[in-house]
Amino acid sequence: MNPLNEFVQIVLVETSHPGNIGSVARAMKNMGLSRLALINPKKFPHDEATALAGNAVDVLEQAQVFSSIEEAVKNSKIIFATSARERTIEWPVASAKDAAQEINQLAAENIEVSILFGREDRGLTNEELQLSNKHLIIPADPEYPVLNIAMSTQVVCYELYQASHNEPIGPWQDFPEYTSQELQHLIEHFNETVFKLDLIDPKNPKQILTRMERMFRRLYPDQMEGNFLRGFLKAVNNKIK
Amino acid sequence: MNPLNEFVQIVLVETSHPGNIGSVARAMKNMGLSRLALINPKKFPHDEATALAGNAVDVLEQAQVFSSIEEAVKNSKIIFATSARERTIEWPVASAKDAAQEINQLAAENIEVSILFGREDRGLTNEELQLSNKHLIIPADPEYPVLNIAMSTQVVCYELYQASHNEPIGPWQDFPEYTSQELQHLIEHFNETVFKLDLIDPKNPKQILTRMERMFRRLYPDQMEGNFLRGFLKAVNNKIK
Repeated sequence: MNPLNEFVQIVLVETSHPGNIGSVARAMKNMGLSRLALINPKKFPHDEATALAGNAVDVLEQAQVFSSIEEAVKNSKIIFATSARERTIEWPVASAKDAAQEINQLAAENIEVSILFGREDRGLTNEELQLSNKHLIIPADPEYPVLNIAMSTQVVCYELYQASHNEPIGPWQDFPEYTSQELQHLIEHFNETVFKLDLIDPKNPKQILTRMERMFRRLYPDQMEGNFLRGFLKAVNNKIK
Repeated sequence: MNPLNEFVQIVLVETSHPGNIGSVARAMKNMGLSRLALINPKKFPHDEATALAGNAVDVLEQAQVFSSIEEAVKNSKIIFATSARERTIEWPVASAKDAAQEINQLAAENIEVSILFGREDRGLTNEELQLSNKHLIIPADPEYPVLNIAMSTQVVCYELYQASHNEPIGPWQDFPEYTSQELQHLIEHFNETVFKLDLIDPKNPKQILTRMERMFRRLYPDQMEGNFLRGFLKAVNNKIK
């Protein structure tokens, strides 16, 4: 089986128009993908979805419906969120093309990836965007950069297909990927240590920690690196006591 | 004016569903294009076209309607025809990406180009395909390679935008990039701290530090992150003394 199809999940968040869900199913199948997750779709199943799916009705039939993003992505190690360009807190971003190459590489290493697509009218919330490791941006004309959701999915799936038809460059990791839970623990351990070292301005504790969290999530540490950093933090804490 | 917008015309041949015409208009405007020609559209103008055009109603309003392809393309020197892969007569072909690069070059030389998109149900006839200089093929899964017409247009317009905009996405950094010298100092500071914390196996000191150096170099910290990590290391060293 194509690793992209096996390890990549397309996640549509609170889609309003069932026709868009059908169009997404077709766009996915055109590019060899089939794993579709729907978070609280307004109308599904629906005749319009079926009509627009064309020969991709099987993708619709296999689609999984969830009541939260967290539940849908719980097996994914890496989460990309599609986003328009401007945000208050900047997050690591990748163009559709660069993201596709990265995702292709991850899938080749059997790492599950979810790609989130937001609502038709207002995309993803800031909270949803911050669930992700990286934001995926489709380059577009700044005068009108907002693509229809099915179109966004088409471009991303197209780039995934393009990426998988080039040989991926061999894994840079010598050790297995750190899991998202391990990464979470590392971040918490770092935060605790930072507090003990009195490095945080109590007037504005959140901003710097959010930025450092973002940095760790951008890092994708492997097991060796993550474990060494945990050992480092443990040794630091022993000195503080 | 953007030469692609000036010299590239998107031509839809006998489109049945007015919604598709609207979606094409939006896909074009998202990618900075506006010249749309319609050959014998079944229903146009039409509310569905307007609804799906979003903020690209101006593209619809400026669309020109023709009764033949020949008439629509009479000012174009080069014609691309989008096509599925298999044809009885072989014709020069280009992938969407390669075609976009070629078209971008032609537009930069003020050469007018038309790109033909066929009917929803059966594409372009062999005669129509033979009007073109080259066939444009969107790479897709051989099991179901037929994209919806609006999706095809989106992919082609996206590749045109990519071809004319090589600047990288980002930067995601809020702060300036850490210089390589600053990064070197950070790595040395980390290494010293690691030695003081007795975390290195003296039998094999080099390997782990090389790996951690690689990790820091992969991180591309910005000034804020790098400075915070330096402050963190300084605080740790104060505890050790």
